[in-house]
Amino acid sequence: MNYHRVVFQPGDVLLEVPEGKNLKEAMNDAGLEFDFPCGGRGTCGKCRVRISKGLAAPVPREQEIIQAQELDAGIRLACLTTVDNDLLVELPNKNQLKHNILITSEARSFQIAPHLQKLYLEIEKPSREAHSSDWHRLKDSLIKQGYKERALESEISIFRKMPDVLREADNRVTAVMYGSEVVGIEPLDSRNTLLGMAFDIGTTTIVGYLLDLSSGEELNVVSALNPQTAFGADVISRLTFASHEESGLNKLHNAVIEAINKLIAEAIQKTSIGREHIYGISIAANTCMHHIFLGINPQSIAVSPYVPALSEPLVLDASDLKIDINQAGKVFVLPNIAGFVGADTVAVLLSTELDQSKDIKLVIDIGTNGEIALGSREKIVACSAAAGPAFEGAQISSGMRGAVGAIDHVYYRERLEYGVIGGGKPLGVCGSALLDTVAGLVELGILNKRGKILAPDQLTNPVAQRFKENLIEYEGQGAFLLARENETGHGRPIMITQSDIRELQMAKGAMAAGVRVLLDAYGIQVQDIQEVLLAGAFGNYLNPHSACVIGLIPPELESKIKMIGNAAGTGAKLALLSADEYRRARDIAEDVKFVELGSYPRFNSIFGECTYFKVP
Amino acid sequence: MNYHRVVFQPGDVLLEVPEGKNLKEAMNDAGLEFDFPCGGRGTCGKCRVRISKGLAAPVPREQEIIQAQELDAGIRLACLTTVDNDLLVELPNKNQLKHNILITSEARSFQIAPHLQKLYLEIEKPSREAHSSDWHRLKDSLIKQGYKERALESEISIFRKMPDVLREADNRVTAVMYGSEVVGIEPLDSRNTLLGMAFDIGTTTIVGYLLDLSSGEELNVVSALNPQTAFGADVISRLTFASHEESGLNKLHNAVIEAINKLIAEAIQKTSIGREHIYGISIAANTCMHHIFLGINPQSIAVSPYVPALSEPLVLDASDLKIDINQAGKVFVLPNIAGFVGADTVAVLLSTELDQSKDIKLVIDIGTNGEIALGSREKIVACSAAAGPAFEGAQISSGMRGAVGAIDHVYYRERLEYGVIGGGKPLGVCGSALLDTVAGLVELGILNKRGKILAPDQLTNPVAQRFKENLIEYEGQGAFLLARENETGHGRPIMITQSDIRELQMAKGAMAAGVRVLLDAYGIQVQDIQEVLLAGAFGNYLNPHSACVIGLIPPELESKIKMIGNAAGTGAKLALLSADEYRRARDIAEDVKFVELGSYPRFNSIFGECTYFKVP
Repeated sequence: MNYHRVVFQPGDVLLEVPEGKNLKEAMNDAGLEFDFPCGGRGTCGKCRVRISKGLAAPVPREQEIIQAQELDAGIRLACLTTVDNDLLVELPNKNQLKHNILITSEARSFQIAPHLQKLYLEIEKPSREAHSSDWHRLKDSLIKQGYKERALESEISIFRKMPDVLREADNRVTAVMYGSEVVGIEPLDSRNTLLGMAFDIGTTTIVGYLLDLSSGEELNVVSALNPQTAFGADVISRLTFASHEESGLNKLHNAVIEAINKLIAEAIQKTSIGREHIYGISIAANTCMHHIFLGINPQSIAVSPYVPALSEPLVLDASDLKIDINQAGKVFVLPNIAGFVGADTVAVLLSTELDQSKDIKLVIDIGTNGEIALGSREKIVACSAAAGPAFEGAQISSGMRGAVGAIDHVYYRERLEYGVIGGGKPLGVCGSALLDTVAGLVELGILNKRGKILAPDQLTNPVAQRFKENLIEYEGQGAFLLARENETGHGRPIMITQSDIRELQMAKGAMAAGVRVLLDAYGIQVQDIQEVLLAGAFGNYLNPHSACVIGLIPPELESKIKMIGNAAGTGAKLALLSADEYRRARDIAEDVKFVELGSYPRFNSIFGECTYFKVP
Repeated sequence: MNYHRVVFQPGDVLLEVPEGKNLKEAMNDAGLEFDFPCGGRGTCGKCRVRISKGLAAPVPREQEIIQAQELDAGIRLACLTTVDNDLLVELPNKNQLKHNILITSEARSFQIAPHLQKLYLEIEKPSREAHSSDWHRLKDSLIKQGYKERALESEISIFRKMPDVLREADNRVTAVMYGSEVVGIEPLDSRNTLLGMAFDIGTTTIVGYLLDLSSGEELNVVSALNPQTAFGADVISRLTFASHEESGLNKLHNAVIEAINKLIAEAIQKTSIGREHIYGISIAANTCMHHIFLGINPQSIAVSPYVPALSEPLVLDASDLKIDINQAGKVFVLPNIAGFVGADTVAVLLSTELDQSKDIKLVIDIGTNGEIALGSREKIVACSAAAGPAFEGAQISSGMRGAVGAIDHVYYRERLEYGVIGGGKPLGVCGSALLDTVAGLVELGILNKRGKILAPDQLTNPVAQRFKENLIEYEGQGAFLLARENETGHGRPIMITQSDIRELQMAKGAMAAGVRVLLDAYGIQVQDIQEVLLAGAFGNYLNPHSACVIGLIPPELESKIKMIGNAAGTGAKLALLSADEYRRARDIAEDVKFVELGSYPRFNSIFGECTYFKVP
C-alpha cells in the first residue's frame, strides 16, 4: 500500500496515512484530539482545517458550506478530505497537537487476562441476626465467588469508602479485585467500566494509551514531550542532573509524574468517564527513566559496573507515586535487564515474542543508546550501544530533529532531490536523511572505506560526476551540499560535512559492533538471522537500504528488515491487559543474557572495524 | 502491703505507692517524666519538689544542700524521699504531668515473637561479573538466610533509600523484615535498636508504651487526654459529631493522629533514639475510637443493628495513617468483636488469657459503656452495657472526675469520714465515693430495696442513727450529706441526692443485667464463676465491697474479685511484642459470642430487677 505523509501544524505531528484514507479516520486512529461535533458526517461544518500543501479540489458539500474565498485559501472539512497526497494540515490554534511522536505499532494476538477485574456483589444486609461488620459481609459475598477468606485483603482508602457505598447502594456493589485484594468498591453494577493506561516513557517523549481493561479496546492515545528534557536532552545528562544537582532527582521525578498526570487528564477528557475508573497503569521505560519515575537515584547506572538499583517487576500503589488515578489503583512497572537495557527493551521483546520465536531474530531500537537483542526461544542476548546523538540529528552541523522543515529523505537521481517534513524550504537534516546522504556517498564511491570525502578527481563512478557540484569545501573541511543558501528557509546552506560523517561513523560503528558482539556471544553467523525488527521512531522512519549501505545493519539482512513501530508501547499495553504477559515480561528480563560491550574481549578493535564503510 | 496515695501537681496524677518505696523509683516505675540528672544518687540536688501534704523531716543530705527556709517550705529531693504517708507533691511547673491516668497493669508471661525483626547482611559488591541490581543482590543475601525469592518484597520508600544506604555502608546493612517484606534498610549493624509503641486509645485518655521489640523491655510510658474530648465527652457524642458535623470525622481523626504523634515524640524525647527506629505500633481501642483512628465513618455503630464497618485485625502502613514513625513502619490494629465491644475488650481478654482459662471468669471493664465478658477456654460470651456516665461522676449533683479535690472513698465509722484525692478540702465526689456512700446507705438500711432514702424515723439499724444528721432535705428531695458548706473547698455542701441514687441504680442495673444475661447465655449460675477481673481505671480504684453491696457485681463474688489494672494496654503490648499473641487476638475476636442486650428476651424486666438493692 502507498502511504502519504500528513503533517499537522501547529505541533508538527507526522502521520503516515495509507492512500485513500479519510483524514478524520486517520486522525482518530492516531488518537489525535480534534472535535467532530456531528460525528464526521459532513453536516455541521465544524471540523475546518487549512490544507496548505497537497490541496485537492473541494467536494460538493464543502462548496455548499464553505465560502469561495475560504475554499481558495485552502479551507476544507477534515471529515470530507481524502488523503491522496502528502499533506500539510493547519489546525485552529487551540488544537495544537504534539510533536512528531510515534504512536502506531503493529499489534500481535494475545489473550486478555487483566490483573484487575470487577465482580458484582449483592451483600447480605445487616440485621440483629447478621450483625457482622461491613467488611465481613462483603468478604462473605466474595467467598461465595470462590475467594479464600484468609487471603482477602484491602486497604484503608477502601475501608473508609465502604460503609457509605454499601448504604448508598443498598448493599449492591461492584468490587474491583486485584488478586485477592479489593482495590475498589463502587455502588451498584459498574462492571462495564474498568480502565487502565499503558505508558511508554521515553527519554524524549511519553506516550500513553487509554485502554478498556475488559475488552482490550484502545480508547485514546495521548503523548507529550518528556518535560525532563528541560534538565538535559539525553540519558547521561539526566543521570548527571539527578545525581549532582540540588534536588535534581526530585525535580526530574516530579516532572515525569506531572506529565503522566496531565496525559491521564487529557486521555479521559473526551470520555465521559472519571479518572477514578482507571485502576491500573503500566510503565515501560529505559532504566534511567524507570528509576527517575520511581524516584530512585539512578547514579549507580552511570558508573561502572553500571548496576541499577532495581530491575525486578514491581506492582506499586498509584497513591504512593502520586499518580492521579483511582486512589487504590495499581502501577505495574515492567522489569529492566541491566543499567542500559531497560524495561522498554523488555516491552519490545514482549511485543515481538522473541522468547517464543523458532527463528533467530535481531531486534534493534536505535537511539542515543541503541538497544540490541538477538535471539529466539532458545536464548536471547542483549546489549546497549552508546551510539551518541547523531541519529537524532544532534551534533551534526546542519542537524535537527525530525520536525517540520527537516530534510528527512535524500534521493540521488538525475540530480540530488530531497523530501522535507511538512513541505516548504528545508531548515536542516534529520537522522534518516543523514543516513540517506552518506549511503549515497558510499554507493557512489565518493567516500572511501575510512569515510573520507574524496576529491572530485578521485571519483571513478560516472554517476558520481552528477553530484560534483555538491562537493564543496566548507570551513576548511570537505562537505556535501544538500541545499544552497537560496533554497533553505533560513538562508544558510544545508550540508553534510566531513565531521558529520565521522559522527555518523561512530554512531553506526557502535551499533554494528554491538550486533557483531551479540553474534559472537550467541555463537552464530549473520546469515543465521531470519528477521531484523526495527523498533522505535527512528527505526520506523529510516530507509532500510541506507542503513544497510552504511553498515548500521549488516547488508546481508536488508531483505529481512521489518519495521515494528512503537513496540515498547505495545509491550506496555500487553503487560497491562494480561497478567500472563506481565509475568512473561519478568521471565524475559530474567532470561535475557546481558552482554557488556565495554568489557567484551577485543571490543575496541571490533568497534574500530565497524566504523569503516564497505565501498563498492 | 500498705499503699499510700501520692498525688502530683500540677496535673493531678495519682499513684498508689507501696509504703517505704522511694519516690523517684515510684515515679520512674509509673513512667512519669522527671529529670534526675545525677541518676538519683542525691548528689546534684536537681530533683527538687515541694511536698505540701505528708511532709517528713529532711534527711541529712537534704539539710546540707537545701536552705533551711526552703526545707521549712516543704522543699525536698524526690530521690531522697521515702513514701511513708499519703503525699501531695508539687512539681516545678515545666514538669506538669498528665491527668490521673491508669498506667500500671499486671504483666503475664508470654513469648516474645515480634512481627518485625532485624537481620545483618553483608551484600555482594557490584562488579562487572556481579552486575545484578542492588535489590537483587540484597535479596540474594536474604535467600541465604532462608527466605524464598518470589516472596520477598518491599516498597517504594525502601527502594528509594537502598542505593544510598548500600553505598554509604559499603554493602553492609541491617534489614528490617516484616515476614518476607523488607520494611527497613539501615547502614551497618543496627540490630540492637528496634522499637515499637503499643497504644490504648480510650474515649477519655490515650496511653502509649515505648517498647524494645527485641527484649520486650518497656522504655517509657506516656499518656494524654484524648483531644477528641473537645468534640464530645462520650462515645455517643463522638459518633454524633463524626456523622453529623461538617468534616466531623476528619476533625476527630486528625485529633487522635496528632495526639499519637505527640505521644511518640514525647516517648522518644528522653531516649537518644530517633523516631525512624520505631517500626511498628499496635492499637487497642473501643470500636468507635477504632473507626475514628482509621478515619472510617462510625455512623453504623450508632444505629440498630449497631454494625461496625470493620472488625478484622488489620496491618496497615503507618504512612497511610500519617503516623510519624519509620516511613515504612506498620500499624497493627487489634480486632473488634461488635459495635460496642471493641478491640480494647479483645486486648483485655488477651491480657487475661481468658481463652485458655480452665476456670470460668467474669471480666468487667466499667465505664460509660461497660464491657462484660464471661467465659473460659470452652467459650466466651460478651456484651456491652450502657451504664451512662454516673460511674465517672457525671450527671451526679456533686459529681466530679477522680481528680484532686474529689472525695474518692467514704467510711461509715463513728462518724462519716472520707478521703480526698490530694488531701485538703473536698470539691465533689467521684464514682468510687458514690459507690461507697450508697453501699453504706444500703448496709445501714437507710435505703429501701427500690433505692428510696427512708425518713429518720423509719431507720431500724441502731448504727444508722449515727448518721441521722447527714440525712437532709435539699431542693425538695431527700439527700445524704457528705460535707457541709464550711468543710468544702468551694463553700457549697457536698451530698448524694435521691436523684443521684437513681442515676447510680440505672448504671449498676445495666451492668448487673449484663452479667445476668451473660450467665443465662452461657448456661451457668453465678457461683460457677471462679474469678472476677476488674479492668480499667475505675475498676482499679473502686472498693470491691461497695460494688458488691450495691449489686454492681454479684455479692457472692466479692472474695473472687481481682483488679487487673490497664489490661487493654497490656493486651496492646502483647499484640505488638508477639505475632502469636496478635493472631490469638484475632481468634479471640472471632470466637467471642456477642450478646446484644437490647434484643435479649426479657431484657427490660431483668434490667428493672437489677436496679433494686438487696437490703439487709
